[in-house]
Parts: sequence; C-alpha cells; structure tokens
Amino acid sequence: MRMYDIIMKKRNGEELTKEEIRFFVEGYTNGEIPDYQVSALMMAIYFQKMTEKETYELTMAMAESGDRLDLSAIHGIKVDKHSTGGVGDKTSLALTPMVAACGIPVAKMSGRGLGHTGGTIDKLESFPGFTTALTTEQFIENVNKIGIAIMGQTADLAPADKKLYALRDVTATVDNMSLIASSIMSKKLAAGADAIVLDVKTGSGAFMKKEEDARALAEEMVKIGKNAGRKTIAVISDMDQPLGFAVGNALEVKEAIETLNGKGPEDFVELCMTLGSRMLIAGGKANTPEEAEEMLKNVIQDGSALKKLAEFVEAQGGDESFVYHPERLPETSSRRELLSDKEGYISRIVCDEVGICSLILGGGRETKESKIDLSVGIVLQKKVGDYVKKGDILAVIHANNEDKAEEAACRLLKAYSITDTKPEKLPFIKAIIQ
Amino acid sequence: MRMYDIIMKKRNGEELTKEEIRFFVEGYTNGEIPDYQVSALMMAIYFQKMTEKETYELTMAMAESGDRLDLSAIHGIKVDKHSTGGVGDKTSLALTPMVAACGIPVAKMSGRGLGHTGGTIDKLESFPGFTTALTTEQFIENVNKIGIAIMGQTADLAPADKKLYALRDVTATVDNMSLIASSIMSKKLAAGADAIVLDVKTGSGAFMKKEEDARALAEEMVKIGKNAGRKTIAVISDMDQPLGFAVGNALEVKEAIETLNGKGPEDFVELCMTLGSRMLIAGGKANTPEEAEEMLKNVIQDGSALKKLAEFVEAQGGDESFVYHPERLPETSSRRELLSDKEGYISRIVCDEVGICSLILGGGRETKESKIDLSVGIVLQKKVGDYVKKGDILAVIHANNEDKAEEAACRLLKAYSITDTKPEKLPFIKAIIQ
Repeated sequence: MRMYDIIMKKRNGEELTKEEIRFFVEGYTNGEIPDYQVSALMMAIYFQKMTEKETYELTMAMAESGDRLDLSAIHGIKVDKHSTGGVGDKTSLALTPMVAACGIPVAKMSGRGLGHTGGTIDKLESFPGFTTALTTEQFIENVNKIGIAIMGQTADLAPADKKLYALRDVTATVDNMSLIASSIMSKKLAAGADAIVLDVKTGSGAFMKKEEDARALAEEMVKIGKNAGRKTIAVISDMDQPLGFAVGNALEVKEAIETLNGKGPEDFVELCMTLGSRMLIAGGKANTPEEAEEMLKNVIQDGSALKKLAEFVEAQGGDESFVYHPERLPETSSRRELLSDKEGYISRIVCDEVGICSLILGGGRETKESKIDLSVGIVLQKKVGDYVKKGDILAVIHANNEDKAEEAACRLLKAYSITDTKPEKLPFIKAIIQ
Repeated sequence: MRMYDIIMKKRNGEELTKEEIRFFVEGYTNGEIPDYQVSALMMAIYFQKMTEKETYELTMAMAESGDRLDLSAIHGIKVDKHSTGGVGDKTSLALTPMVAACGIPVAKMSGRGLGHTGGTIDKLESFPGFTTALTTEQFIENVNKIGIAIMGQTADLAPADKKLYALRDVTATVDNMSLIASSIMSKKLAAGADAIVLDVKTGSGAFMKKEEDARALAEEMVKIGKNAGRKTIAVISDMDQPLGFAVGNALEVKEAIETLNGKGPEDFVELCMTLGSRMLIAGGKANTPEEAEEMLKNVIQDGSALKKLAEFVEAQGGDESFVYHPERLPETSSRRELLSDKEGYISRIVCDEVGICSLILGGGRETKESKIDLSVGIVLQKKVGDYVKKGDILAVIHANNEDKAEEAACRLLKAYSITDTKPEKLPFIKAIIQ
C-alpha cells in the first residue's frame, strides 16, 4: 500500500477502504508518512468529502491510535457530555453536579481555554486548592465514591487526532464536517463513556456560525457514535449571544452556583435541563424528558446538586466553603458599568466580541503559555430582546487594569446593536438529533 | 502575508495576486514555507484551477527563482525547441542540425532519460568522446562558431520548479494543466531563447494520453510564452505509437543520421519539417511554412545538415567519423526477430510498452543512478495500418542478454493488436497552436 495511491484515490472521488484509512492514520502517527502527503490528502478530502463509512473508520482509527480509558471499574452507565465551545459556557459546572445528584456517574476529561472561549479546568481553579492532576485510580475511585471526577487530558488519548488537527490548522483544511466530527468523536470514544451527549452550539460565538452547519456536524457525530455502538444524542443551541450573563472564570462559577441555587439565567437553565434530561435517559435513570426534568428540578430544590458540587470540589483538593460563599471567589479591584448610548431594543450582541473583551481583560489565553486572571470578565445586564433607555446599564466590566477596562468597554459597546423594532424571539434550543 | 491565507484563498476559488504567488514561490524555494503547506496549496489548485494570469505569474516567479541564461552574446534570434517526451523521440538529433544549417542558432539545454522515455544527451553519448560538460563561455562560443551547442542542465535553472515538481510527484498533484505548463515554461524562459517551439505529444506513449489534454496544455504554454513576450508555437503530434522505427539510444542516432541522409521514416520527417519550418519562421529565416520546408529539404539534399551534425559532434569532443559511418556506433551481440503470430492489419501498438521493452533490455534508467546500455533497443518493422502475415517480422530486438531479450519479446508481442479490418489512418500532426 502506498500513500500516493491513497491520495490519488481520494482526489479522484473514490471511497477509501478501512485498510487504507488505517494505513495512513497509523503511518502518520508513527512518523512514517510525511506531513506533506497528509496535508494533500486532507485538502483532497475537503473537496471530495468522506462517506459515512469513511468518517467512521477514520474516527475509529484515531480513537485507537493511543491510550483508551477503561472505565469498566465505574459502576453504572457512564454518560459523557461534550460542548463544541462558546462564550460564557459554564455548562459542565452546573450540569455535572445535577446529573451526578440524580445518580449518573460523571467521569470527565476536560481541557483548558484557548483564545476567546474558556475551559472548564480554568474555571474550577477559581476554588483555591482545586486540582485536576489525579491518577487514573483516584479518578475512578472519586467517581465511585461521590459520583463526579474531572481530570485534565493527561493520558495520550487519540494522538493521531492531535497531530492531524495541528496539521489541518495550518493548511486551511479544518472546515470539513467529516474531519471535524471525527476529531471530536475520536477523543470521546477513547475516553471510554457508554453514552455521549453532544452540546453543539451555533451562532456568532460558536465554531459553527450557521445553523445548517451545526446541524450537519451534529448529524455526522451522532452517526459516528451510533456506528461505534454508543448511545449518542446532540442538542443544538444558540450561541449567537453569550450563554447566561457571566463571561469570565470566577464570574461563571458564581453563575453556575446561582443556578444550582435555583436562580440561574433562563437560557442557561433551559440548556442544563435539555442536556441533563438526555443524559438521565441515556443513563437509564429516566424514561421521558418530562420525568428527567422533574428529577433535575428536585435535585436543585432539595440542595443535593449544590451539595454534590461541594463534595466534588473538596474531593479534588478545593475549598468547598466557597460553594456556599461564592462572594469569597476571586474578585477584581474595580467594576465599571457600560451604559447604553441609545434607546431601543437590543437586536444583537456579537458573541465572540464579548469573549474577546474578556480575553482583553486578562480572562483568557492568547497562547498556550499565557497566565490568566480568574477574577476578570463581563456580566451582561441586558440581552437580545431587552428594551433599554439611554444611560441604562448594558453590562458590568470586572477589571484589574483601567486601560484594559477602557479598551474592553469601547469594544463591548460596539458589539451591541440597538434598533427601534423588537427583534423576533428565536428558540434557544434549535434541535435535538438522535 | 501568511501562507495559510493564500491556501484558504485558493481553496475558496479566488484568484491569487502576483504578490501572493511570489511570496509562496520565494518562501518555498528558500525553505521558509514548509512542504505541507505547499502540498495543500497544490491540491487546492488541482481542484480550483488557476487563471491565465495566475499561471503566468507562477511561471515567471519560478523562472526567476534561480540562474537565468544570458544568450545575448549569441548573434541572431535564438529559437528553442522543447518536447514533452515520448518513445523513439530522436527529434533534436536531426532537427537541430537541419535548422542550424539554415542559419538558426541552436543553444540548447538537454536532459538525460528517466523511465521509459530517452534523453537527448544519452543518445549523443553514442558518439565516443562526446560531452555536454561545457562552460557557458564554450557553449556560447560554439553556437557563434558552428551554429549548435547542447549543454547539460548544469546551471541552477528554475530551482523553485524543481522543488515544486518533486513535491507534486509524491502528492498526486501533477496533473493540472496550469502546473504542468508553468513547470515546462519556467525552465524554457530561464534558458533565455527569444522564441520557443513546443513539440507536444499525445497518445499512449505520451504524458498527455488524450488529444484534448495535449491541446489544453499546448494552449496554456503558448499563452504563457506570449504573456512573457516570447514568440511561442506548439505542434501537437501523435505518440500513440513510437516515432519512426527505432527505439534505443544508438539505434535512434542511426535513424536520425538516415533522416539527414534523406532516408528518414515518413512520420519522423513530417515532424521535423513541421517543427523546423516553424523554427525558421520564428527565427526570421522564412516567411511561410512552404518556403521554410523548401529550405529544410535543401539542407538535407546538399548534405549541409549532415555536415552540421558532424561539426557539432566534433566541437563537443565526439568522433565525427561516426556521422558518416553510423555502422561504427555501438551494436549488440545479438538481434532477434519478433514474428507475428496472426494475420491481419496492425490496429494498435501500445506505445509506452515499447519504451518499457527498451528499458528492460537496458536502454533506459529505472532510477537516476542506473547505467544504460547505448546499443540495445527495438527497431520496428511494421507500424499501425500495415498488413502482416503469420510469421512476418514485426520488429527486431537488439539485445545483449538472452533472458532480457525473451522478456522484451513476450511483452512487445502483446503490445501489438492485429485485426481484420484496416484501421482508419489518422493525421500524424494533430494541430498547430500559435
């Protein structure tokens, strides 16, 4: 078998076999096939697409290219959740204690943030002492004991995907649905869960700007998961404005705690309920979404979800008292109110601009080496559809540096569009694909 | 400027600017842009094509990437000839003395053979002592004194093309008309001639199997030449069977000498007349093809073309007596007749198979390092359209090894197709594009 023939075959629009896909994935991972042949193949795939079978085979070859987590020592059906990423996305912080309180074991690998979207691990480090540096044994023991554990991506999961993604990233071959779907799913499959619930975002703050693209990606991923024998469900939700009100590490932790106290923002609660109910069904804890939502409401009302968060924080070295006293979480030296300069309806908030404002304030990483300021960020006071008068507070900017606050304020004001007519209210949950 | 953006732009079907093309050609040549980005761009070009302007700019950027020959010290209009290569293609051997005898200065860079097609330099080395290792000064002096000089590709002409071609060759991105045309033309433009006559072959023994592809390539090259301000003419001719009868280094030299003695094969003479007349017109020595062909016939009849070959061979260290006594050229220890096993009309000779038979006999290079046997080869006795009886001689195999002769004979017999009906005679010259 020769890589040249594989490139030629795909270039000419033919379907690659399982053996051909394994040959190039293995050869590339072990360094026998050079970058320049693989990038040519990726560009050929960009133009010729991949069939469902090819996409599945690519995913499996990547999933099996390195370590695979063995979660069999964890009791019950393990349900993993994956978000395609967005601005103000603190979903894991509230959702995992909610489903764990309902009896679903959560054994999660999470990442750090890069660019204008945040990472779950960074947010959790707002709790002093909190660490994700667990051994696999501790990780499994914690899940069995308290129901949740979150670990950094220390294991060598899907190294083929890592290498391939880095190459695609510099050769303009990222945006192909099969390649994106197989990249996400190879890691999820290697991470060992029995069922996977996918949180696919769409809109100006998401990787998929257009709803049709988000839907296509969701469908690709669900097909791969099913072909791999895992229950897989995708929820498509709005990321055309930030999720909830808070954007910034400690600020988002506070909002997640408020949510577990029954005082969460409407859109965020809707997302947690939708994803959570699908996780409970996939995990065999409920039969219908209604039943599952009832269970989720109960664990909020009776305080058991909040307690689960506290147990989890404590089990990973964090100070659990902060869960009950979120005012102790890191705070900035100043808060600055951003006032509206117009009267009217908010018709749009350019979502990734809000993420960039948080990045400017120091809340995100420009490069992998950047240190982040956990306290800074933005808390929106008004969202799309709200009516504002001139001088009303649009948002509060939490900053530790006046120049940066000024820069963020200017930019954030421009991200808001205000019009005379009330914008049509679009559904927050766009679709559920299973 | 970033290579990533250039790849993305081409991938999305947009036209690259002169600056963008220069950026990637220069960056790739000096090693600043990695192979993997360039191969992705090449694959994007394969799918999105290049406009006439882009193709011209790519050609010029490659032509200017290394040394350029300065032929201004040569008197007269320098006319170069380039063949896309084929089996039995001894055109330069006969044509250059013919046009030089008519007063066109021939300052030519030639290559060695690789694979199943031969190279002019290998063929010329059939004359004992002949060398192409000339300094640029000797080269120019010889052209001014006797009218012809042929030099190996010692100068660093179009290094960008060399690097790019090697990459395309292993990434399935060779077959794009713009890329093929710019590769050929960049070297021709760097070689400094005032006018270029292109000998584009089509058929089973040619790089361009289909006539429409040969025509498209010819048109691309003529456009580039004109945009670069050089008179450029392309002649498309048949390579669906070998050119003339002889295939093999010394055998082809003999056939070229026979042609200069007025006894050349019909198709080969037609090609020399067609290309030669265009060279004379381009070089300002004739006004019409008829006038030019008359001049070419004269230099054959009066022996001046043959004398020119002898002068040229002598000037480059070879034994000119061989020109007048071609029986002294290298000969094999045995000759074997290939007999027809059927009666009927020859409807087809798979052309590249004949080249491969010569390669098997030792007449070509499998790799750049292979040594070749100048004496071996095949002399066809029957060509397409001829009627043969069972036992008639189809070809004579000149070999120095019986096993190889046997292998070549089996293979060559299979290359012949014999049918009951006479095949339609197609024109040998398919088109002239200018």
